[in-house]
Amino acid sequence: MDLLDDTVPGIGTYEDFNTIDWVREKSKDRDRHREIANKSKQSTVALLFSISDAFSGWLLMLLIGLMSGALAGGIDIAAHWMTDLKEGVCLNGFWFNHEHCCWASNETTFQERDKCPQWKSWAELMVGVSEGPGLYVVNYFMYVCWALLFAFLAVILVRAFAPYACGSGIPEIKTILSGFIIRGYLGKWTLIIKTITLVLAVSSGLSLGKEGPLVHVACCCANILCHFFTKYRRNEAKKREVLSAASAVGVSVAFGAPIGGVLFSLEEVSYYFPLKTLWRSFFAALVAAFTLRSINPFGNSRLVLFYVEFHTPWHLLELIPFVLLGIFGGLWGAFFIRANIAWCRLRKNTSLGHYPVLEVVVVTLLTALLAFPIEYTKMSSSELISELFNDCGLLDSSKLCGYTSNSGSTSGSVNATAANGLGARLAGPGLYTAMWQLALALVLKMVFTVVTFGMKVPSGLFIPSMAVGAIAGRLLGVCMEQLAIRHHERDIFRGWCSPGADCITPGLYAMVGAAACLGGVTRMTVSLVVIMFELTGGLEYIVPLMAAAMTSKWVADALGRESIYEAHIRLNGYPFLEAKEEFRHKTLATDVMRPRRGDPPVSVLTESGMTVEEVERLIADTTYSGFPVVISQQSPRLVGFVLRRDLVISLENARRHQEGVVSMSPILFTECDPPMSPSAPPAVKLRSILDLSPFTVTVHTAMEIVVDIFRKLGLRQCLKSHLIELIIKKKVNIEEHYWNL
Amino acid sequence: MDLLDDTVPGIGTYEDFNTIDWVREKSKDRDRHREIANKSKQSTVALLFSISDAFSGWLLMLLIGLMSGALAGGIDIAAHWMTDLKEGVCLNGFWFNHEHCCWASNETTFQERDKCPQWKSWAELMVGVSEGPGLYVVNYFMYVCWALLFAFLAVILVRAFAPYACGSGIPEIKTILSGFIIRGYLGKWTLIIKTITLVLAVSSGLSLGKEGPLVHVACCCANILCHFFTKYRRNEAKKREVLSAASAVGVSVAFGAPIGGVLFSLEEVSYYFPLKTLWRSFFAALVAAFTLRSINPFGNSRLVLFYVEFHTPWHLLELIPFVLLGIFGGLWGAFFIRANIAWCRLRKNTSLGHYPVLEVVVVTLLTALLAFPIEYTKMSSSELISELFNDCGLLDSSKLCGYTSNSGSTSGSVNATAANGLGARLAGPGLYTAMWQLALALVLKMVFTVVTFGMKVPSGLFIPSMAVGAIAGRLLGVCMEQLAIRHHERDIFRGWCSPGADCITPGLYAMVGAAACLGGVTRMTVSLVVIMFELTGGLEYIVPLMAAAMTSKWVADALGRESIYEAHIRLNGYPFLEAKEEFRHKTLATDVMRPRRGDPPVSVLTESGMTVEEVERLIADTTYSGFPVVISQQSPRLVGFVLRRDLVISLENARRHQEGVVSMSPILFTECDPPMSPSAPPAVKLRSILDLSPFTVTVHTAMEIVVDIFRKLGLRQCLKSHLIELIIKKKVNIEEHYWNL
Repeated sequence: MDLLDDTVPGIGTYEDFNTIDWVREKSKDRDRHREIANKSKQSTVALLFSISDAFSGWLLMLLIGLMSGALAGGIDIAAHWMTDLKEGVCLNGFWFNHEHCCWASNETTFQERDKCPQWKSWAELMVGVSEGPGLYVVNYFMYVCWALLFAFLAVILVRAFAPYACGSGIPEIKTILSGFIIRGYLGKWTLIIKTITLVLAVSSGLSLGKEGPLVHVACCCANILCHFFTKYRRNEAKKREVLSAASAVGVSVAFGAPIGGVLFSLEEVSYYFPLKTLWRSFFAALVAAFTLRSINPFGNSRLVLFYVEFHTPWHLLELIPFVLLGIFGGLWGAFFIRANIAWCRLRKNTSLGHYPVLEVVVVTLLTALLAFPIEYTKMSSSELISELFNDCGLLDSSKLCGYTSNSGSTSGSVNATAANGLGARLAGPGLYTAMWQLALALVLKMVFTVVTFGMKVPSGLFIPSMAVGAIAGRLLGVCMEQLAIRHHERDIFRGWCSPGADCITPGLYAMVGAAACLGGVTRMTVSLVVIMFELTGGLEYIVPLMAAAMTSKWVADALGRESIYEAHIRLNGYPFLEAKEEFRHKTLATDVMRPRRGDPPVSVLTESGMTVEEVERLIADTTYSGFPVVISQQSPRLVGFVLRRDLVISLENARRHQEGVVSMSPILFTECDPPMSPSAPPAVKLRSILDLSPFTVTVHTAMEIVVDIFRKLGLRQCLKSHLIELIIKKKVNIEEHYWNL
Repeated sequence: MDLLDDTVPGIGTYEDFNTIDWVREKSKDRDRHREIANKSKQSTVALLFSISDAFSGWLLMLLIGLMSGALAGGIDIAAHWMTDLKEGVCLNGFWFNHEHCCWASNETTFQERDKCPQWKSWAELMVGVSEGPGLYVVNYFMYVCWALLFAFLAVILVRAFAPYACGSGIPEIKTILSGFIIRGYLGKWTLIIKTITLVLAVSSGLSLGKEGPLVHVACCCANILCHFFTKYRRNEAKKREVLSAASAVGVSVAFGAPIGGVLFSLEEVSYYFPLKTLWRSFFAALVAAFTLRSINPFGNSRLVLFYVEFHTPWHLLELIPFVLLGIFGGLWGAFFIRANIAWCRLRKNTSLGHYPVLEVVVVTLLTALLAFPIEYTKMSSSELISELFNDCGLLDSSKLCGYTSNSGSTSGSVNATAANGLGARLAGPGLYTAMWQLALALVLKMVFTVVTFGMKVPSGLFIPSMAVGAIAGRLLGVCMEQLAIRHHERDIFRGWCSPGADCITPGLYAMVGAAACLGGVTRMTVSLVVIMFELTGGLEYIVPLMAAAMTSKWVADALGRESIYEAHIRLNGYPFLEAKEEFRHKTLATDVMRPRRGDPPVSVLTESGMTVEEVERLIADTTYSGFPVVISQQSPRLVGFVLRRDLVISLENARRHQEGVVSMSPILFTECDPPMSPSAPPAVKLRSILDLSPFTVTVHTAMEIVVDIFRKLGLRQCLKSHLIELIIKKKVNIEEHYWNL
């Protein structure tokens, strides 16, 4: 009787920092499903169980959507409040942010909606100063103090409770989805700490975004919820299907773009994306988006992060500046990746990495000191992007809309009569100020984002990249606009800015620039365009967006093959088989096999004839993650393959629970028992943990085919027919050797 | 010296009705790419060539988008004109359709935009009758005559010139994309005939749509354009990447929904969808959508087929009727598939299939006779759907908006004061008439669609299914509306139809019903929702659409596993490995291997020692599509696998071109030449056509793993290690045996 079956706890699980065996996991799931389906015919209870099992996936998706949407709403509200807390507090109740505080106030008009007596800046509150340089200095000081406090708390919490909570999360999730195990990366402590520290990090004014961390948060929710469903708890492959869906949820709540979220998951994060996951991801993303909307963090019952309200047409020749923005985006992407990776390498290899808390505090100090004086760096990046995307309406009093009116007055507000004349769109002093401030903000943001991404706090880079692009786009858009106005009599600009006709919309340029820069860094393609499409709600601007996105990707790809996430994967040394890897020379499997010439021969087990002691010694002497099993030393025909971990667990279990097992007990991998003398100790039968159908390739198999097999079928190891040699998938790279096998 | 290299024409190509070898095709492409990349370092010309080769894919996509968009625009314009031609002709110029004809006329108001003196019905034109029963009869007669003429021309052209042009095209394209070869299915004659006959079939008033055929047209364009690009002409795998993109283009121009088109291609049609194809498909779909818009077939510079202009909110309790519509959609899907397949089987197995022309004529006659009297079947399905989606505005005079006004008058037009009162939305006699006419139309459309789909004319089923759903939805919507109005004082309806508040929108019910029915038939999920999202332009109605789509899919899946396309694939016997197939019992590879017990042993070739005559006799005696090559009869160790076709071509080529080859010439598959006597005839060396890395599995491999390997890696055959047995992929099904090997 075989005492070692699947109910031995530990069999079938994996070591930390190992890859899973997709084929085995899928077989387990198919067997389970077949068993349930066959039993369901026997009784009504079994039938109901089978139906509930089929729907458990949908219930899980619903729960993930609800939990992620709720968390994202909470994060948004808290971050908004704490960001405003750096500047002042509401007398009606300290838990109100600035906008909420002034809502109820009757003295506000739309223009002045942020000014109300209930909101007191710190200077006014603490010192009683209400004007003059003292006001400025005290506010400056308080702003920097709050920023330092938030950042300090964030990094302390991360270091103390959940070191995995730092960074973006997307590179590690990509690796996990490709089959790697990182225990604790998606656990409950990581979730709690990541949520809290994300709010703190965003509020501290650092140049980082929420999107990557929101994907991490959603995946943590998914991982935790999986524990309540048998179907997903024990099966690593099914769990990864759920995690794919959770990545879609993360992007969906970050932007309010469910379709874009699903495509992001498909394009950037998922390794295996069965079509079944597509439908469920979409469902979960929608649930999350609507949960977020009901929580209503933006106070405007809108779903999208940046709502674009204009629909003015664009002119064909504007494609030239749009392509220029695309080139800028590609250059920014290539520059950012190289600079950031160099900085992270510096952090890893020098003493800079030994003082993470100090690093965070110093960077926050510098960011806050340099950000406060300039309006455009003081506001949060999301607000900045919203303002840059905005088209200047008649009532806009911001400096960005500081055009001169027809009568020559330089007031900020543009009155109705002025809008008819061309002079209304000539840049006034307000606009000039805004321009050089934006240019300064551009440089600061670029530098700070390079230094911030990768610190030991949660940090995303979607919003910072979009901010860089939006600033560049708006600058270019205003330049184009002024050019068109001053030279409107030339052929090339005819019809662009005639009186009464729509002129150039700088907000559109900001949007295109944001898309180009984001694409250059992440190399997103379809998901980027779809997210922007969902943000703007119409197909009018698809062509400029596509042109910029394509140009940006081509330029960035020409300068460097990897996106930021792949670069970080490589920096951290994760075993990720990239789909795009090409081999320069026609490499064969025989070139990468182990053992190589000069290495000792591969350790094998025989089907019968080995004792427990011999096997235990072999396990202790080697570090291989698995062993081939052959018929005998003389006839090395392959029977199967057995994993080290399963062997260790089975032998321990046999020693503990099976009667009469001693070091001299024979180990059998055969199907039928060979005849044994009655005085011999009872055998340990291990056929159940033997993989009887390992994959084999011939020596002449080209390396690309081997990589294809590994990637498409999800293998861990692949054996060579006729002789026992192994290719183990940890890092299949012809220049580098493998890790511990 | 080896005379047989890759330049022997025919080596590496495939027989008709065979499957391609994806692994070989991909290796070919990688080798080609590596060669170009290595050469590009040598000279500037080579570098430019390498760059142009990299961009050739994008140029091809651009051309496909332009060509498909132009063709689709032409088809739309021609179909619109010929549909109107059944009813009358424009005096200003016979090439104008009804709407164009009356545009210029000054006597039309918006209401009366279709009435103008320049447009004459046939009765008025031919007989001079302008009123009375004679008018009706003559118009009826002319309508039926034109319909018969169009349908007759269509089926004659299809039968005479391009038999592949009939039907939808999507089942065959699915099969082609999975690796099957059907020569001529995407050729130029098929393209020409399909385009012309599609216009004729749609204009004849038959209950069919354009969408499936547009996908076929786009794929034909792609196939023809591939011939101009070396990279794609010779490589069947790369060609299929392009065809995936072309399917996206087809749906994109059918609906004006590029994102939905890409997702449709991903979900329904493509077998292998490398991520690279995603970006290029999207690009091609956008180019096509914008080409179509510039051609402007709808005369309204809108991109989308059905433009939905309302944005009224919906109430949570309305989810119940939405789910009911979903159930209806699922039932319709299951019913349609079974009825249509039964009808097609009848056509195949009885004499009904021997008279296709007669069948088409009879069906068209019945359709026209029964359609003309009812307004809702006389108009084209697209127009019907547009009208059903429409919300009744103040100026709508159609019967569907025949509500009574407050004053009790029963005029069709609703005046402004009446809209404030509840009585404005009570059903008037116009609406009652519309209701029973719609109910009749529903039954007629259901029956005719079942009979029409599968006839020997191009026919799609998206629009007919949506029409069925839209009618059912509108009926339910009006019922709900009337219920809410008459009982508005009850709690459940409170707030729904109070004076001044938005009431129920029957147009939304029509939309939800259309989505549900389309989903039930095709089992589309995400692509369906995204297409509807692109049609409506906003996320407000996503929740009703999702609810109906999910319910419809569950109900339909519970009643039958296959979508209409999979059912047709199975009906026609194509070798398509469905992703969803499950094996009821744990089946092993050994159960499906050939040869089975009692069969003669597999024919093998030996590495050396066989003569040309022996091999030719083996080829003539057997029908296998390939032969394993072993070391010798005594030592049956596998060396490789050689395909029949390649063997035949190589031997013919050797006999013709190589000197001294006779029947006694030895055939060598070895790397090095064995010593030969000088008088022996020269050897034919065939190592270059030998596949040295065939895939092998052990006998214990589970069948699902084998199917997975076949599907994911795209194999044609898979060998068993140790002994020579074969599993050939033609139809891997444990109940059925294989076709000719």
